[in-house]
Amino acid sequence: MPGPQLPPPLLYADTARSPDALYFGRVEVPDPFLAFGLRGRRYAVVSALEFGRVRRTSAFDVVLPLERFLKLARERWPRRTPGPAEVLSLVAREYRQNRFRVPLDFPAGLLDKARALGLRLEVADGPLFPDREIKTPAEAAAIREGNRCSALGFAAVERILRASRIRGNRLYHRGRVVTSEHLKFAIEVACLEAGAISSHTIVAGGDQACDPHERGSGPIRPHELVIVDIFPRVSHTGFHGDMTRTFLRGRASDAQRALVEAVRAAQLAALRATRANANGRDVHNRCVEVFRQRGFETKVTARGSVGFFHGTGHGLGLAVHEPPRMSGLVDYTLKAGSVVTVEPGLYYPGVGACRIEDVVQVTTGAPRMLSRYHYHWEF
Amino acid sequence: MPGPQLPPPLLYADTARSPDALYFGRVEVPDPFLAFGLRGRRYAVVSALEFGRVRRTSAFDVVLPLERFLKLARERWPRRTPGPAEVLSLVAREYRQNRFRVPLDFPAGLLDKARALGLRLEVADGPLFPDREIKTPAEAAAIREGNRCSALGFAAVERILRASRIRGNRLYHRGRVVTSEHLKFAIEVACLEAGAISSHTIVAGGDQACDPHERGSGPIRPHELVIVDIFPRVSHTGFHGDMTRTFLRGRASDAQRALVEAVRAAQLAALRATRANANGRDVHNRCVEVFRQRGFETKVTARGSVGFFHGTGHGLGLAVHEPPRMSGLVDYTLKAGSVVTVEPGLYYPGVGACRIEDVVQVTTGAPRMLSRYHYHWEF
Repeated sequence: MPGPQLPPPLLYADTARSPDALYFGRVEVPDPFLAFGLRGRRYAVVSALEFGRVRRTSAFDVVLPLERFLKLARERWPRRTPGPAEVLSLVAREYRQNRFRVPLDFPAGLLDKARALGLRLEVADGPLFPDREIKTPAEAAAIREGNRCSALGFAAVERILRASRIRGNRLYHRGRVVTSEHLKFAIEVACLEAGAISSHTIVAGGDQACDPHERGSGPIRPHELVIVDIFPRVSHTGFHGDMTRTFLRGRASDAQRALVEAVRAAQLAALRATRANANGRDVHNRCVEVFRQRGFETKVTARGSVGFFHGTGHGLGLAVHEPPRMSGLVDYTLKAGSVVTVEPGLYYPGVGACRIEDVVQVTTGAPRMLSRYHYHWEF
Repeated sequence: MPGPQLPPPLLYADTARSPDALYFGRVEVPDPFLAFGLRGRRYAVVSALEFGRVRRTSAFDVVLPLERFLKLARERWPRRTPGPAEVLSLVAREYRQNRFRVPLDFPAGLLDKARALGLRLEVADGPLFPDREIKTPAEAAAIREGNRCSALGFAAVERILRASRIRGNRLYHRGRVVTSEHLKFAIEVACLEAGAISSHTIVAGGDQACDPHERGSGPIRPHELVIVDIFPRVSHTGFHGDMTRTFLRGRASDAQRALVEAVRAAQLAALRATRANANGRDVHNRCVEVFRQRGFETKVTARGSVGFFHGTGHGLGLAVHEPPRMSGLVDYTLKAGSVVTVEPGLYYPGVGACRIEDVVQVTTGAPRMLSRYHYHWEF
């Protein structure tokens, strides 16, 4: 028995901000544009600026010229400056389709205006394209390519750290003090050479790394843990890699060593639990349990949280963060074909911080690794 | 007499997608978070992952821990997975503020859910922060810094093109065929070295450039016009540059020369008209008029549009495209302090394409140039 029929999807977004728009049309469009599905075909309404390119290179079956609808809108509403709501209203009339399903991040302004023009827009109660979560072999390969770029970044960092000299409280490489900025530049160039853009790269040492989203700045010190988190976007596919390693140049203390070993043990425990039909919360709790057993406490202090206070993993694809989630805060049943990060971490100002992150594709058995870089960390 | 009081602003966005969120909080937050104003103070609700960093480095006066509201939400609605709507509802109750103004791109899902929980959300009929359009001297300097990065990119391209040898239908540099990819890499490295990320860089030659948003690929040919459009984001400020130059290595034809001269003449005409209280449409029409006088026709062909078929300029700041617009399609009165691009172009498959783009700050007199690179194009 077929399920209730969903209204067709409708988007208004640029592909830099909306992975759904890129997934739907498979072409990059830098300004917001209307796109919709109808009876199995994909439609886009784009300006002359995009028309030829979108018609030639996209997955859209029908590409409509925006200018034609703007002209019609000016005739119909001579006292308004026509915008996407007016265009949508005319397109909907031409295709005799008044009801659409829009994504959670559909723009509120267009939602209100289109409804005022009589359109019935329903906000999807979850992903607009649930299939986006399940990665095809080609999509998994594209994510693997992103992770190869992350790995090139680690190799660049490791090369500099290994070649650096320890003098006092500083590292020197080719006569220059080694800094977060210096290492991020080496990572970003390595990614560019491989055809990917690494934005917001994290290279944070010591107490800086205890803020998980602190990107890091200034000198990297010897004998301190340095978190390196690289999530590049491969330009020709739009897919991301996302990997983290933690390095230390010099000699680790017992406390640092216990921290790193606990994080890697938690990661392995989580990887063993990551499979189809598992609850993401249970995967997360494997990490919580490893940390508990080893005496690593999570708590809120006056300066912020310490311990393990983020989720264990998130979906990865055209967005860096997408469904599913593996976290203590939500229930999420993993599906075969999903791609997730597995990235426990521990953060203790004074000792330092460690996070180790890999990417796997969920199967009914052991997960398929889509990332590869070694786990040596002290040198 | 004071005007009608607007409800306070409310945002739910990450700062990579929402320049408004970055403008409001002056801190980068990679995942969507709630932010609002109340009686002149700025509030953010963030997770433990962001808490310390946001409290230390942002413009927010009050930083609230997301986890506390999630806990309250689970108590109040035990059968729901709490999300931003439930958190917002509890925050609104705590601060006794039920009415907010949200931006046009506020997420539709949250809009509908929050309204269902009794909140009164009004979508702003224009920019949420109209002051964002008017750039302070520090913001203008940040845009100038972005344009310096664009100029470093042009210098890198020019250096390679000048040093390249023409052999048949190819250019060779250090024994390698010069390609769009090769030149984009040189640009992106030059920007990285200067602290900026250049995404979606355009280096398109010949007929490829006749699609204004085609990024370009494959060999660059001698004697063809090559459009180079660089709009980097400076990492430490979030502000963009945006400049375009058109180069040709070899010898230009008379038709190519007439094209480039017309575009530069149109740009100068538009710059003369760009001032406070001018209508952006009139600035645009200066370009249209220059092209008409010189016999360059704009029309739609079976393969797409030819001639001049995009706007003359757009606002530039934390977003690459923001208000105001200077285009034939909209009325927009320019304000002193706005920063706009001025970028006419001509596109004729067979001859090639040219676009020249600079950035100015609008004043009551001649506009203040915020970009600088020479206009030699044939070498």
